[in-house]
Amino acid sequence: MYIPEFKDVVAASEAIAPFVHRTPVLTSRQLDAIAGAHLLFKCENFQKVGAFKFRGATNAVLSLNEEDRRRGVVTHSSGNHAAALALAAVSRGVRACIVMPSTAPEVKKRAVAGYGAEITFCEPTLAAREAAAAEIIRRTGATMIHPFDNFNIIAGQGTAALELLTDHPSPDAVLAPVGGGGLLSGTAITARHLAPSIKIYGAEPILADDAARSLHTGTLQPALPPRTIADGLLTSLCERTFTVISKKADDILTVSEEDIKEAMRLVWERMKIIIEPSSAVPLAAVLGNRHLFAGKTVAIIISGGNVDLAKLPFGQHA
Amino acid sequence: MYIPEFKDVVAASEAIAPFVHRTPVLTSRQLDAIAGAHLLFKCENFQKVGAFKFRGATNAVLSLNEEDRRRGVVTHSSGNHAAALALAAVSRGVRACIVMPSTAPEVKKRAVAGYGAEITFCEPTLAAREAAAAEIIRRTGATMIHPFDNFNIIAGQGTAALELLTDHPSPDAVLAPVGGGGLLSGTAITARHLAPSIKIYGAEPILADDAARSLHTGTLQPALPPRTIADGLLTSLCERTFTVISKKADDILTVSEEDIKEAMRLVWERMKIIIEPSSAVPLAAVLGNRHLFAGKTVAIIISGGNVDLAKLPFGQHA
Repeated sequence: MYIPEFKDVVAASEAIAPFVHRTPVLTSRQLDAIAGAHLLFKCENFQKVGAFKFRGATNAVLSLNEEDRRRGVVTHSSGNHAAALALAAVSRGVRACIVMPSTAPEVKKRAVAGYGAEITFCEPTLAAREAAAAEIIRRTGATMIHPFDNFNIIAGQGTAALELLTDHPSPDAVLAPVGGGGLLSGTAITARHLAPSIKIYGAEPILADDAARSLHTGTLQPALPPRTIADGLLTSLCERTFTVISKKADDILTVSEEDIKEAMRLVWERMKIIIEPSSAVPLAAVLGNRHLFAGKTVAIIISGGNVDLAKLPFGQHA
Repeated sequence: MYIPEFKDVVAASEAIAPFVHRTPVLTSRQLDAIAGAHLLFKCENFQKVGAFKFRGATNAVLSLNEEDRRRGVVTHSSGNHAAALALAAVSRGVRACIVMPSTAPEVKKRAVAGYGAEITFCEPTLAAREAAAAEIIRRTGATMIHPFDNFNIIAGQGTAALELLTDHPSPDAVLAPVGGGGLLSGTAITARHLAPSIKIYGAEPILADDAARSLHTGTLQPALPPRTIADGLLTSLCERTFTVISKKADDILTVSEEDIKEAMRLVWERMKIIIEPSSAVPLAAVLGNRHLFAGKTVAIIISGGNVDLAKLPFGQHA
């Protein structure tokens, strides 16, 4: 099992630099006052396709050899990775086949199709998705690009932390949300190398706390049934990301659904930027664990900004 | 009737620089493709209190003499000017009395109170607001700071365009939303001086098109009953702003409510930033008048980002 090292993140950063946005690191005196800490927000909601996923997908596409480039790439996803791989591949002249459940939101189907990918619809089960992808691979020889269980994806996701720690070299802690663990793995590899004494935390919803249970028990734990508002964090770790995170991260912090919504509202209202629920999870963890962060400089990776504006978690009030 | 010149905007810019944010100018390749033009967004939604109003209010407070500083300032407003004057005054050690209608949203009352201003509530009529302000002035000798019919306010609002045209010296056109006309006046004074051949447009809702009717008839026209979603643009021009705008602006473009909502949705979804409906009006005008802007570099002043997240104009869909 290949696991990226810091030099692989550096190589990824150089490779993808012409194709990705170098996103800003924003601060907010109002949120600092609320948190009792100095917060640095690495804004991957401003990344292409609205999520950090474009970094890993671009690195994976650029890592293909000539023969693989001709055969194309395939993945099964209905989320940000699908859109990211579609744009990363098609814009580099590589064919992208995306397997999506027929029940995926229309807006996501349109986005993936709009980037020029070919969509194969299937039943909304993991078995059906894997079977559809396998059939495409058998027929075309396309390369499967898994959303997180992939060396080049993890190295690519680490480039967000590399930029962050280049711009702001010495925060006391860094937090990233954790679903499958690709972003947290890349972040941990990068941060542990550049700032050995930094605290590295994953943050996840209590309703999807498989990473916390895995880390605390020392054994990879299965996911719970998906129920959280943080729809980017439904997947569970794989052996590869579990290995990295066990070794490099300090802990996984968990937060309630109410705390996620409140943290998301704070960022929207005070910073005037749109972040998706998954991106609010680390801020919720900072606000809920004041003993860990009081008076510290705390870097947070804002993973994305893709939300359905017609289904927002802000209730009607008078 | 005193009207600021370009040198007054420069003086305001130097005076307020230590106290205001120098806001970024953002671009979006996606919105450029949709508009068929290169768009520059001067992001005053990231200004303190979430609106350009903090520039004018700060300049007005800094322009007070010692005696006036001791007596304090007063205004009647339930919008961004109230919050802006409250913060500008109190943070400089000047007492601020804000007259608000008792029917103002709780969130706005809390914001103004949170900045340390004293609030006087009154009936929700212009007569009651003016009477309450007059009573405070009689009692305290406070200086009335009108939201737009004020020399220092107009000069202060012009500093956004001054920064914009310093960062990007030669756009073909600049647009600002127009309500009372303070922002458009300051913008026009600045842009006409720095780029004499630039096209300068105000943008307003058809449902609040008093500025367009005033400009087109050559006579100051009264406001219509307030019905637009762009709640920052309900007021009508005063003689002072009408004089500036007649002389310096090229035209006022009007847009429908549907076009405002669609432009607002585009900015939220594609740029991942939160803008208030009034700020979407110029983009709606660009999208609705392609013959004026095709292939041009077009600067838009995003006036603010204060929205009630529980009352958003994005309908529920499946």
